[in-house]
Amino acid sequence: MERVPLERKVLNENDRIAGELRARFAEHGIVCLNLISSPGSGKTTLLERTLQTIPPEERVAVLTGDIQTENDARRLARFGFPVKQITTGGTCHLDARMIERAISGWRLEDLDLLLIENVGNLVCPASYDLGEAAKIVVLSVTEGEDKPLKYPSIFFKSELLVLSKMDLLPHVRFSVNAAEENARKIHAGMQIVRVSCETGDGLSEWLRWLDGKRQVRAAATLGSS
Amino acid sequence: MERVPLERKVLNENDRIAGELRARFAEHGIVCLNLISSPGSGKTTLLERTLQTIPPEERVAVLTGDIQTENDARRLARFGFPVKQITTGGTCHLDARMIERAISGWRLEDLDLLLIENVGNLVCPASYDLGEAAKIVVLSVTEGEDKPLKYPSIFFKSELLVLSKMDLLPHVRFSVNAAEENARKIHAGMQIVRVSCETGDGLSEWLRWLDGKRQVRAAATLGSS
Repeated sequence: MERVPLERKVLNENDRIAGELRARFAEHGIVCLNLISSPGSGKTTLLERTLQTIPPEERVAVLTGDIQTENDARRLARFGFPVKQITTGGTCHLDARMIERAISGWRLEDLDLLLIENVGNLVCPASYDLGEAAKIVVLSVTEGEDKPLKYPSIFFKSELLVLSKMDLLPHVRFSVNAAEENARKIHAGMQIVRVSCETGDGLSEWLRWLDGKRQVRAAATLGSS
Repeated sequence: MERVPLERKVLNENDRIAGELRARFAEHGIVCLNLISSPGSGKTTLLERTLQTIPPEERVAVLTGDIQTENDARRLARFGFPVKQITTGGTCHLDARMIERAISGWRLEDLDLLLIENVGNLVCPASYDLGEAAKIVVLSVTEGEDKPLKYPSIFFKSELLVLSKMDLLPHVRFSVNAAEENARKIHAGMQIVRVSCETGDGLSEWLRWLDGKRQVRAAATLGSS
């Protein structure tokens, strides 16, 4: 309990920086998305499949967070878009200051989509606003349909649930309906896409959701200019 | 960075209480084990299979941590041993004070094995000593063989790695050898068991490891009495 006052101060400071980031992203017409999941739910693979489909002339960049290693940045850099690894060195989440630093060398006017892959952790990243337009939670079918009830904060705060590794469904005890019901108990209007990055099933639905986000932002930017 | 001084104070206080717990466990000949993994790696299922094999007259108890829900305690209580759920209400790990409170109603002289299932989180629980004799990290084959390198702290601090969901191996891209090599890069002497709770493969090896721990403690308790 003695942690609370400092924790609040840290979160207030984070919210201030996140607010500044959000204003800068809006000014430059950038959609920023914050992907959160347990370790190994398939965030990096989903980003690989996504970058594969995006024409090289599009203005996309990726930040990827990990406690150690630059593995994910290496995997994602193959697609030719700007990618930066944020190595937190022990910290269990990304915070707004890390994002501010990581993008400091980039010309924001050259971007319109910024994908952030958070540290693999279904708990702590939920508390840190990164200035994103939306949080996205990824849950693989191997993790159990009870997870929205056990980790409610991230499911409450995420606009979209990506149910990943759908190809493994025949091999695990997992009810997609129960998982989706649990997610909507926590977050009534939650959007959900079911994806397999192995077979490609559901990827078009995910990409449609992503395009929708980008069109809304583009329309808003046109309207305000 | 401004978090560090208070964080250190919290951890020092935790270490003090953990030290007291460790002394009490030793005094009563209790082996305490702290199971840590990502959400959905199979900690609860491993405990179910374990309790199933233990004769009802044995002196075993379980504490199970979650942010929300009492699901795991319900699952584990079916085997007749004392089980208590610790609901952290948002906190991303168990700490020593929570353990101290949870066992306050139990007669420690009636126990010789205390199994603690931590909150599903591969990061934060690594920092909190609970007075355990050993930490055990569970990693499922669906999570990717790179995880020891990305989350080194918990692999460094755990005596045993349980590679779980081995039955899914034919359906995922996962090299057991690479995972084990990565684990031993972080922690040279790490013990490893490969387990499938579905087929039962490897459970006997896990139970042998567990028995070994209990025999060492029993011998130490006899020796000191």
